[in-house]
Amino acid sequence: MINVGVFGASGYTGFETIKILRQHPQIKLIFATSESSAGGNMSDIYPVVWDVPLVSSKTAPLDKVEAVFCCLPHAASMPTVLRARQAGVRVIDLSADFRLTNTTTYEKWYGVPHTAPELLQEAAYGISEINRSQIRETNLLANPGCYPTSIILALYPLLKAGLLNPQQPIIADSKSGVSGAGRKASLKTHFVEVNENLSPYNIGQKHRHIAEVSDMVGRFKGNGDNIIFSPHLVPISRGMLSTIYVGLNDDQTSAQLQNRYQALYADQPFIRVLSDGQLATMAHTQNSNLCAISITVVTPRQLILCSSIDNLGKGAAGQAVQNFNIMFGIEETVGLI
Amino acid sequence: MINVGVFGASGYTGFETIKILRQHPQIKLIFATSESSAGGNMSDIYPVVWDVPLVSSKTAPLDKVEAVFCCLPHAASMPTVLRARQAGVRVIDLSADFRLTNTTTYEKWYGVPHTAPELLQEAAYGISEINRSQIRETNLLANPGCYPTSIILALYPLLKAGLLNPQQPIIADSKSGVSGAGRKASLKTHFVEVNENLSPYNIGQKHRHIAEVSDMVGRFKGNGDNIIFSPHLVPISRGMLSTIYVGLNDDQTSAQLQNRYQALYADQPFIRVLSDGQLATMAHTQNSNLCAISITVVTPRQLILCSSIDNLGKGAAGQAVQNFNIMFGIEETVGLI
Amino acid sequence: MINVGVFGASGYTGFETIKILRQHPQIKLIFATSESSAGGNMSDIYPVVWDVPLVSSKTAPLDKVEAVFCCLPHAASMPTVLRARQAGVRVIDLSADFRLTNTTTYEKWYGVPHTAPELLQEAAYGISEINRSQIRETNLLANPGCYPTSIILALYPLLKAGLLNPQQPIIADSKSGVSGAGRKASLKTHFVEVNENLSPYNIGQKHRHIAEVSDMVGRFKGNGDNIIFSPHLVPISRGMLSTIYVGLNDDQTSAQLQNRYQALYADQPFIRVLSDGQLATMAHTQNSNLCAISITVVTPRQLILCSSIDNLGKGAAGQAVQNFNIMFGIEETVGLI
Amino acid sequence: MINVGVFGASGYTGFETIKILRQHPQIKLIFATSESSAGGNMSDIYPVVWDVPLVSSKTAPLDKVEAVFCCLPHAASMPTVLRARQAGVRVIDLSADFRLTNTTTYEKWYGVPHTAPELLQEAAYGISEINRSQIRETNLLANPGCYPTSIILALYPLLKAGLLNPQQPIIADSKSGVSGAGRKASLKTHFVEVNENLSPYNIGQKHRHIAEVSDMVGRFKGNGDNIIFSPHLVPISRGMLSTIYVGLNDDQTSAQLQNRYQALYADQPFIRVLSDGQLATMAHTQNSNLCAISITVVTPRQLILCSSIDNLGKGAAGQAVQNFNIMFGIEETVGLI
Repeated sequence: MINVGVFGASGYTGFETIKILRQHPQIKLIFATSESSAGGNMSDIYPVVWDVPLVSSKTAPLDKVEAVFCCLPHAASMPTVLRARQAGVRVIDLSADFRLTNTTTYEKWYGVPHTAPELLQEAAYGISEINRSQIRETNLLANPGCYPTSIILALYPLLKAGLLNPQQPIIADSKSGVSGAGRKASLKTHFVEVNENLSPYNIGQKHRHIAEVSDMVGRFKGNGDNIIFSPHLVPISRGMLSTIYVGLNDDQTSAQLQNRYQALYADQPFIRVLSDGQLATMAHTQNSNLCAISITVVTPRQLILCSSIDNLGKGAAGQAVQNFNIMFGIEETVGLI
Repeated sequence: MINVGVFGASGYTGFETIKILRQHPQIKLIFATSESSAGGNMSDIYPVVWDVPLVSSKTAPLDKVEAVFCCLPHAASMPTVLRARQAGVRVIDLSADFRLTNTTTYEKWYGVPHTAPELLQEAAYGISEINRSQIRETNLLANPGCYPTSIILALYPLLKAGLLNPQQPIIADSKSGVSGAGRKASLKTHFVEVNENLSPYNIGQKHRHIAEVSDMVGRFKGNGDNIIFSPHLVPISRGMLSTIYVGLNDDQTSAQLQNRYQALYADQPFIRVLSDGQLATMAHTQNSNLCAISITVVTPRQLILCSSIDNLGKGAAGQAVQNFNIMFGIEETVGLI
Repeated sequence: MINVGVFGASGYTGFETIKILRQHPQIKLIFATSESSAGGNMSDIYPVVWDVPLVSSKTAPLDKVEAVFCCLPHAASMPTVLRARQAGVRVIDLSADFRLTNTTTYEKWYGVPHTAPELLQEAAYGISEINRSQIRETNLLANPGCYPTSIILALYPLLKAGLLNPQQPIIADSKSGVSGAGRKASLKTHFVEVNENLSPYNIGQKHRHIAEVSDMVGRFKGNGDNIIFSPHLVPISRGMLSTIYVGLNDDQTSAQLQNRYQALYADQPFIRVLSDGQLATMAHTQNSNLCAISITVVTPRQLILCSSIDNLGKGAAGQAVQNFNIMFGIEETVGLI
Repeated sequence: MINVGVFGASGYTGFETIKILRQHPQIKLIFATSESSAGGNMSDIYPVVWDVPLVSSKTAPLDKVEAVFCCLPHAASMPTVLRARQAGVRVIDLSADFRLTNTTTYEKWYGVPHTAPELLQEAAYGISEINRSQIRETNLLANPGCYPTSIILALYPLLKAGLLNPQQPIIADSKSGVSGAGRKASLKTHFVEVNENLSPYNIGQKHRHIAEVSDMVGRFKGNGDNIIFSPHLVPISRGMLSTIYVGLNDDQTSAQLQNRYQALYADQPFIRVLSDGQLATMAHTQNSNLCAISITVVTPRQLILCSSIDNLGKGAAGQAVQNFNIMFGIEETVGLI
């Protein structure tokens, strides 16, 4: 049994992490923090979890754990991660604070100075299926954003094969459930404003998650500057679908692409490449750590990829536990199926 | 054409009132107020309404209107109503401030002193179908609460006939859409907290609307002290259904009750008494000023009444315009069908 | 007063048409047909409409009306339209049967022979804002599909100015409420399958509505063969948003495009071009005949247009009544605001 | 490891059962049947389950399993249960076919003859918390209905203490998610008909589940003939809340009742008695096997109980697995937390 703690248990990501950890047969949850509900119990916030007391992060016993999941918002995460690392604890950080290796890029997109740049070198970006060897060794896992996870996993086989036409934009039209917007009350998340509505926001090249996608596309020699990303808020609690339009630099048949995707992802327990003619929907992955990908050939050089994840599952807490499993040499699917 | 103004246009009730008034062929909307959006336009808040500028209530030209609809919250409404009445303007007040004739009762339930008790005598409680003659003459119309409207219209034929057994509680199990909770952002109205959830609140004898129901039951010599009222929040934007359990003091058949209800409501254009075997649902009245009532005889002395209204329609703005029509001698259905 | 009839009143489009016609001050509804509910009343199907009896189309008195709205499914519509035209009645047909002028194209997409090709010449395609002069004269109005309406109105100013780059695909990622799928019970429209889900369908170049868009793009010398269209079903009853990605053949600033759109649509009462920085959402048009369009410049030659309509409003019944008003010389907004 | 099979895997209850069984560490799933999808895979129906092949019930290898979960509709269940019992396999039957011990009562409510009355004697009614000793021994577990589970668990402490006033009706106003209506496509479950609507159905004394509640109330010497039960369909996929109004034959304080409930349910891992002032909501139990109960004292002799379960969890598949655990001497919470 590995002793772990969770910082920031009261948000939706923290809650989902706790729910998975409670069922994980090789994990013992030592503490869970919430500043607003310290002294109380998870059930004060999420009634289905009855047995998890909440403490202030100040009193969290870092000396009793081998790893922590940090579910705090960006910027707030940095000092806590630093403290944990200084105590020798391995960290899975679900915020954006250690995803971008370049502090200038970080500061441009997040508008705050990076206060722990010394940790960036040891951080591993944790799309499990792509970066497994680095994840295995790291003491600081930067868990990816939900949108980037859905987009990168769909693009990866094309990137790896160098098939993307760099002259054409990668257009990702993404749809996300409302839990992705966090638990803070605001008019934007008011039931009556969201229900029966569908809203694009920060479309074009304005959303912070572009930086992560751009980074990964660049790593594989793709054109990271030519990404168009349009997130939309949909009246759904959890779920994410990215519909991605890409151009190829070589003719491909549906069968060729199917083979390529199926081969590359054959041993990945959480990636489902749908067969020809099927389309990924949110229902393919809801309440799971799965990513479902469908490939639609419009013309020999023009594709539509549909990529579905649960924004709280593979898009956050699920992938975090998958990465934890990799870091601690546990079979990857434990606690997640 | 009658010139009117609206105070408090930015809430859901204000918005609905404006939407109806824009279509009303005998009304000219002179002003609409919003403190938070003064200087702007309704479309800043509700994009489907493009042509209504918003002003501060301080600059609202009371001298240019014959009537105002006051859509402010309780307590905030009193001084504005007083100002309008002092300017000689007839008022339709959609708040609770003038619904209870007894200031002690008001202060008990609403927790604030009544600052305009001198107006209470001229106020008429506006369930249109029950109080029409008083409504016609009044200069201060107290528009009823949504829950009381749904409950009282269902009970009225029994109250009028003296058929309710005073020994048995009147149990109203009511379900309301979220717009009834107002437009203020709060965790209770956060999409993820409301969606896929259903929550009772203030059940038993704790909800303020009991006072209105109790008042009306008492007026018809019923036992106003024996009301049990259980409101529930449902993941719906607008709509209300009250399922009401009552005991009778005399045996009644379904046919007798049908006749009684049909006869009493025969000339009421907005009341639909459903035929035997049908049950009222929210869909019977959504986006309308209708009230649909079904009668289910369980035993000769035990009934279930289902009463459906739109909480923003007959439960607020719709009934307000209906009452306006009565007050100004206009045919009751104008602007409402 | 103009006497009209409605064929196919029991579907969602028929219902919406009836609701609008009931409020239209210059229309008298003479008959409404439904084969499944003939002899009954609209309220058997839609309880909020109490006063409309339903008859079989066989007994519909065509000699008593000047115009009919035909809300039947495609293929079923042709014989009824033919019958009405032979009786000298003007027709607003909401099906797809007279939208495509080429019967080969029709038969390719709809899989049935066209049984009334002799009427195609007199048919006018009814995007009101684009084809008004032809609409005014026609006796057979082919009311456009919902998706094409949202896409064409957004593209029109670019098409008219010849600004679209014919080398780049026009990519329309559209999201539609479930009423667009019709009222027939099926697993695809089962609440539990749709709720909390979001599903692409017929993406690429497979959806029938591509033919209409292609036709219109071609009419304005655009490249009608390079359209990629991805419809998605969303858990919403009514509403539609198309997010459209286009390339330009000339550099344009946001201000230039704003001016172009605002100028072209200045006198169109139902088109709202949003100001720079705003994005169209479903809430901009729900329950109305509006179309709201936002323009986002990603690069000087790459745009994102968001186009919102209500699929039952401007996407069906609303535009049908707008076209009726044009055909009969009535002010265009009558019955629609 | 215990080998089990599932009959009727394609319905919502079958799906939920399969999902739980896949995570259960002491169960090996040997077969799952579906007549409509035999030869295919669960993922054809529910994409999140990828690894469960489906067979026809005719070919299900009963000789390879110790127990089966029967998730077929009532009437269809009887012959399959009989076949399994004849093969010596223990059965957990989720249909209504073995819940009522009296065949006349069964035939009255379900309208079909009981074709396996010889099995009724060995059947145990499986509200786990109430009937554990009988469940442990049985070879045929009749898993309770969802509504009765929510109602009986709330009433049980009062029934056991003889506190219910037999003169007053037990009024259960219940609200259920749509998965309770099954997966068959119908207009009643069409998204547009359910969404933004709330509908009572079979209210009074007409719903089949009354028989189960009546039976249990009678077993504890309560007045089983005086139950009023009003189910309502709400636009939610899964969840159930019963708001129950009861009269007592003795004065009780809130503290006394709290103590009674807390004491009786102290050792029950899935029952949560909420503390004074809290109210049970659907969120208290969603996606779990929990039952949450709140007690509201209106007057010393008049209570409101709110009882929340997940209709697919404690209301069906969850309780079925809990009962399986009891039957096979496994700790009750295994696979369920």
